[in-house]
Amino acid sequence: MIGRLNHVAIAVPDLRAASRLYSETLGAEVSAVTDLPEHGVSVVFVTLPNTKIELMAPLGDGSPILGFLERNPSGGMHHVCYEVDDIIAASDQLVAKGARVLGEPRTGAHGLPVLFLHPKDFHGTLIELEEVARPLSSSFHQ
Amino acid sequence: MIGRLNHVAIAVPDLRAASRLYSETLGAEVSAVTDLPEHGVSVVFVTLPNTKIELMAPLGDGSPILGFLERNPSGGMHHVCYEVDDIIAASDQLVAKGARVLGEPRTGAHGLPVLFLHPKDFHGTLIELEEVARPLSSSFHQ
Repeated sequence: MIGRLNHVAIAVPDLRAASRLYSETLGAEVSAVTDLPEHGVSVVFVTLPNTKIELMAPLGDGSPILGFLERNPSGGMHHVCYEVDDIIAASDQLVAKGARVLGEPRTGAHGLPVLFLHPKDFHGTLIELEEVARPLSSSFHQ
Repeated sequence: MIGRLNHVAIAVPDLRAASRLYSETLGAEVSAVTDLPEHGVSVVFVTLPNTKIELMAPLGDGSPILGFLERNPSGGMHHVCYEVDDIIAASDQLVAKGARVLGEPRTGAHGLPVLFLHPKDFHGTLIELEEVARPLSSSFHQ
């Protein structure tokens, strides 16, 4: 079911410092900062030849990564995102296997349908699934 | 400097249960278990189209991931591994930028030279670098 590793997301307290670290110290290609107020994060993408790293910092008081950064003040690996062809079929299959899907599919940072799987069902790893075969249609909107 | 994402390593308390989870629930291709006594871990590789996930469990009383699993009993993302062309040049460049390299390059799980970077210098992320262009000596040739 899972396909490519779309990205590894790393939460950081200071996005500009992290951007400099990845570009200057690690010598990687780093995008400009993008604010995603609907997701409560600001992000930059580190482009690698085969995948990307998403560095993200909290945006706004209700940011979903504030709790993570309280527990990990200097930052840390937050989640991995795997691509799937059909997010509804993936969700149905996972629920049938006993995994907990967190909420309903919604539009992710790339404008595609995503959902998250409970880290307690996956050995402490928060997993995002992103549908890449077809863009989000209005029927997915929550 | 950093190239491809070679793998994401996830520490798990039970490798056979984790193998079943990734093969049966997530539908991925999972290798047989390999014991690496010189690294204190047993591993399986989850093959994705563009990279791989390394699931690892402690092997022996001195396993380097025992402390991580004490802090994270159900497991969690442990490190990311980036490929570099020349591990000595990479190490020199990183030290010159003020990053702390943990020890000397050594032979990693894939028989290639690796080194680890201090997570405190990289926003809480333990980074492994693996040299893929040329082995340290002819004895490392695959």
